Amino acid sequence: MSSLQHVNPRVRGIRAPPHSRLQRLGALKPFVKVIDVSSGDPHRAGMKPITFVRQVLAVCLLPQLLEENSLPLDVRLRARRLLEACDGGSVGSYTASSGMLHVRQSIAEFITRRDVGVPSYAEDIFISAGFQRALMVVMKLLARGQEETQTGVLTPMPCPHTLPALLDEAGVTLVPHQLMEGRGWAVDLDELHRALKTARGRCEPRAIYISNPGNPTGHVQDWKSIEEVIQFAAAERLLLLVDEVYQDSVYGHGREFISYKRVLFEMDEEYLETVQLVSFHSLSSAQVGECGLRAGYMELVNIDPEVMHFVETMLCTDISTPVTGQLALDIMVNPPKPGDLSFDTYTREILLSRATLSQNAQRAQEFLNDLPGMSCQPAMGGIYLYPRLHLPSEIIEKAKILEVEAGVLYCQMLLEEKGVFLGSGIFYFLQR
Amino acid sequence: MSSLQHVNPRVRGIRAPPHSRLQRLGALKPFVKVIDVSSGDPHRAGMKPITFVRQVLAVCLLPQLLEENSLPLDVRLRARRLLEACDGGSVGSYTASSGMLHVRQSIAEFITRRDVGVPSYAEDIFISAGFQRALMVVMKLLARGQEETQTGVLTPMPCPHTLPALLDEAGVTLVPHQLMEGRGWAVDLDELHRALKTARGRCEPRAIYISNPGNPTGHVQDWKSIEEVIQFAAAERLLLLVDEVYQDSVYGHGREFISYKRVLFEMDEEYLETVQLVSFHSLSSAQVGECGLRAGYMELVNIDPEVMHFVETMLCTDISTPVTGQLALDIMVNPPKPGDLSFDTYTREILLSRATLSQNAQRAQEFLNDLPGMSCQPAMGGIYLYPRLHLPSEIIEKAKILEVEAGVLYCQMLLEEKGVFLGSGIFYFLQR
Repeated sequence: MSSLQHVNPRVRGIRAPPHSRLQRLGALKPFVKVIDVSSGDPHRAGMKPITFVRQVLAVCLLPQLLEENSLPLDVRLRARRLLEACDGGSVGSYTASSGMLHVRQSIAEFITRRDVGVPSYAEDIFISAGFQRALMVVMKLLARGQEETQTGVLTPMPCPHTLPALLDEAGVTLVPHQLMEGRGWAVDLDELHRALKTARGRCEPRAIYISNPGNPTGHVQDWKSIEEVIQFAAAERLLLLVDEVYQDSVYGHGREFISYKRVLFEMDEEYLETVQLVSFHSLSSAQVGECGLRAGYMELVNIDPEVMHFVETMLCTDISTPVTGQLALDIMVNPPKPGDLSFDTYTREILLSRATLSQNAQRAQEFLNDLPGMSCQPAMGGIYLYPRLHLPSEIIEKAKILEVEAGVLYCQMLLEEKGVFLGSGIFYFLQR
Repeated sequence: MSSLQHVNPRVRGIRAPPHSRLQRLGALKPFVKVIDVSSGDPHRAGMKPITFVRQVLAVCLLPQLLEENSLPLDVRLRARRLLEACDGGSVGSYTASSGMLHVRQSIAEFITRRDVGVPSYAEDIFISAGFQRALMVVMKLLARGQEETQTGVLTPMPCPHTLPALLDEAGVTLVPHQLMEGRGWAVDLDELHRALKTARGRCEPRAIYISNPGNPTGHVQDWKSIEEVIQFAAAERLLLLVDEVYQDSVYGHGREFISYKRVLFEMDEEYLETVQLVSFHSLSSAQVGECGLRAGYMELVNIDPEVMHFVETMLCTDISTPVTGQLALDIMVNPPKPGDLSFDTYTREILLSRATLSQNAQRAQEFLNDLPGMSCQPAMGGIYLYPRLHLPSEIIEKAKILEVEAGVLYCQMLLEEKGVFLGSGIFYFLQR
């Protein structure tokens, strides 16, 4: 039988993400266990779930708990409201392909509060089974052309480690723009212009991807930097794709999270009515960290109604977002308020989570900077640090003799001798 | 700004599924509400969730319930075991891309019991966020070639209403083979040969898709029919893709569910060691019906290890399956056993669900057969009936005058006058 022997040649080109390749490698080496720290998974790393989120979800799954007096009244009231929003009153029913309207409304209200009154509308919010599914929908809409007419997306280096594979699968060209390590991995305007100029003729740049707070850099942009990027996108007619997943986790001294949308809406009319912006957020963010429940959303700003229709159509043919994830999104964006029974516990947990993140980032950065050959910029937000490794001269010499790249040799030796596998972040680092 | 104005031409070709188009139409007509009955969603239709499933999930989400004495002990023990299988002891962590090993083992044990001892192995089981995601992975592996060399998949008519769009997105050609209405929508061997012969030269048929129990026909194959299909697939070197999602819902007199794998393993060596088989199952099946939790799985039989590797790689780049769905799968395939505290409740609920399905199928079929111009084969399993509509002669006359297709006219009139929208099932019906 040979019907599946010769797989799709395009599929042959897909490389498994590092953690999968590692499982295979790990099996060949005398190591006891593979500990995967590549996925940015707060609960796996020991962070505790937010009690209010879990209590409400438990009641939604088992509605007999609505009568359970040992659970706070606001938990049960919230669960009742969410169950009323589910078809058939059950989390076991499918939802509309863009997500539950009730949850989309909660998200729009959250964004309006967050952006100090800038209006947000439920019909511009699209819920998906994780932020990457939403991003893929937009990428598939953007993708067109071949070679020099293929869609290009300006992408920061370093970038989220899953992004290059996603762009490749969508059929768009990655146009790298280098972040400025010396300035804490800031976005640099001259570098954006340089990257764009180099790309033209090679592909057709149609969008720019920004991660703020930065994954994996920990950089948090200020108002001025965001404004510059918006002006650049406007001048070059680029769609702005902003990963704002770590918006709840800014701890850098004097920094706060400012959304691209908020900045855009304080700019002149020529910008605020024309710049096309898609902002992404996720349930897998640092504070709630419910990666396993799978939900995220995007807000579309200044996008043509006809394009919005295609977004909806594509979500229809995609996976319907898990209902438990959608309900958790609702709780994430609409947590207990002052005066609610669960407010104190919720606030204590959020503050603890923020303090833990901030302290861990500080300690890890100090530790890295104390290591010989390592240096690391401080993080201002998010859950990643991005250190620089200065290769030892013996490695560089040895690599010359063996005629291999020094970085590759170093990584191989680190894996074989110490059992530490460096993933794609470092991979980009070495490529420079 | 025009960066997103011109969407990907391939995307322009995608039509929204009927229920989405209907929402738009509904908004233009004087109807109060759209009731969508197209998705086969048991909970939306009022079926109750299985208590044991929901109790265990509630405890997994809110581990403080482990100490809740009002919940049965077997519920709490099961939840404890499942939480131990989650990374970081939390349903909030990502899992391996092929699914949690613990759940894959439970599934393999279930299949071995179901198939009266035919062995099944966890490494051949791949969990995905719903059966369609798994099917898409296989289709993408199968897809290759253009026009006369493009992969073709023999597909029953009628078929699951989401299947044609999925095949199209994967880039494979749908090769229709007609099911035999007069024999309760049975698969016919001569028709398979005819379909294959017609397809050759037009595409390269590499697989055959079978739905058993049939979606949307309600037909359940017997041993001999399954054996014939396997022999056909073997002789023509076709990969067998078997949708066995409704395996838990067979109620036709004298019928039982028999898996393709079980039949294969009682055939001669020339078959059992060579026929490539993929069997799909889902949490959205009739009895458990947890569509909103999103999980399904496939078992791969006689597939080349190298191909298995690509399956894993593709699942890596797909969405990680929601953990609540994976845990529900575990409970579905490993329900309470005799002697367990929850056994009686569980058994009562399952029997009630089966009786409801069987009686509803019977009543609906009788009702349809009593309508003028309608006839309907009895269903033996699953959750669908597939009636035949004999168009009134006035419609046929009117259509001639208007120079439109009679079936299209009938559907338009039914929608505009009665507010009933016939979906893609009937669409295929009219195409014959």
